Amino acid sequence: MPYVNIKVTKEGGTNGTGPTAGEKAELIKGVTDLLAQVLNKNPATTVVVIDEVALENWGIGALPVTEYRKEQIR
Amino acid sequence: MPYVNIKVTKEGGTNGTGPTAGEKAELIKGVTDLLAQVLNKNPATTVVVIDEVALENWGIGALPVTEYRKEQIR
Amino acid sequence: MPYVNIKVTKEGGTNGTGPTAGEKAELIKGVTDLLAQVLNKNPATTVVVIDEVALENWGIGALPVTEYRKEQIR
Amino acid sequence: MPYVNIKVTKEGGTNGTGPTAGEKAELIKGVTDLLAQVLNKNPATTVVVIDEVALENWGIGALPVTEYRKEQIR
Amino acid sequence: MPYVNIKVTKEGGTNGTGPTAGEKAELIKGVTDLLAQVLNKNPATTVVVIDEVALENWGIGALPVTEYRKEQIR
Amino acid sequence: MPYVNIKVTKEGGTNGTGPTAGEKAELIKGVTDLLAQVLNKNPATTVVVIDEVALENWGIGALPVTEYRKEQIR
Repeated sequence: MPYVNIKVTKEGGTNGTGPTAGEKAELIKGVTDLLAQVLNKNPATTVVVIDEVALENWGIGALPVTEYRKEQIR
Repeated sequence: MPYVNIKVTKEGGTNGTGPTAGEKAELIKGVTDLLAQVLNKNPATTVVVIDEVALENWGIGALPVTEYRKEQIR
Repeated sequence: MPYVNIKVTKEGGTNGTGPTAGEKAELIKGVTDLLAQVLNKNPATTVVVIDEVALENWGIGALPVTEYRKEQIR
Repeated sequence: MPYVNIKVTKEGGTNGTGPTAGEKAELIKGVTDLLAQVLNKNPATTVVVIDEVALENWGIGALPVTEYRKEQIR
Repeated sequence: MPYVNIKVTKEGGTNGTGPTAGEKAELIKGVTDLLAQVLNKNPATTVVVIDEVALENWGIGALPVTEYRKEQIR
Repeated sequence: MPYVNIKVTKEGGTNGTGPTAGEKAELIKGVTDLLAQVLNKNPATTVVVIDEVALENWGIGALPVTEYRKEQIR
């Protein structure tokens, strides 16, 4: 009965507004299968919650991710 | 001074867009009272955060919840 | 299929090392019942995780909770 | 490689809809610097996620925060 | 730069005290690969945190998991 | 009334078993002050929870952190 929380930035997908429903379904299936394979966890009670986080709310390297990426390509 | 996080799917309520403000107030009061009764925790410093999660972002049984429910009623 | 996370300080209980198994069972039942009553959520798929946090790892009022309590009773 | 999650109510900022991008950048920089100073953590792998929570989804003192504030000023 | 949190009950493994280091490494690799495949996320900045939760701190079906399992096999 | 969760690996400190109580107090004070300065949040209701995570439970770059560090210094 595991609980998995996946946080990703809200970007990409068909129109740039975040992962598509199909991509999210793949994440849900993939991580549920992984827990069944590695730890023999029951998929029936494995819960997955995906959070999509606005770019300006995600920080890495002491910068919001949009600023961080500008630094990286300098 | 407990901290409680309640995650529910964003559905139901008056117009299908999620729990009403009144229902959320009931959850906040209910869980705060529970912690006061069971563990004698002070309601004044009990914090409750409710997250409403889009149906396509919630997985159970290796499926997004909307697909899961279709399977269940077959 | 809600998910609830309850964080409390690791104290109290029979020997001061945190809530007893019975108290935790009461929290699990209480919050699951609450979600069934208020939002008609199915107890069968309601998941509750309780985290017990060491006193020195919990801060309030800019102080670790043990220091905070000393200030309060001055 | 710390992970920090900051949850605040969605209010304030230029037009009352929550912290500005600039304020969020200050939070990201501030907490990343703090972890570097206190624990010598590498800013390059310090991740910060800010969640903005609707007022009716945040509870304190057994009340949603808007109700709580009305009580406080009585 | 995703962040993934996996919560499982603290059981199983070589001596019943929870997943082995090898099993945890498989989870970390598996979920990181999944995010690279599905969303093209960079493994270098994908963070995974595994929480092992004591059985009496995990509730499902309004019961601590140990009680829940006894009910299931009746 | 913000809520902040800081997750760090359980290492360092006086005897290698994680941050000292003094270091944790610095983190609590530092992040509470930051939220007061940037967003004018009230320290009295700012809650901070620090989680110390075992090295084998923390993944980065598709590897547990101990393996990751060995790769980095090759």
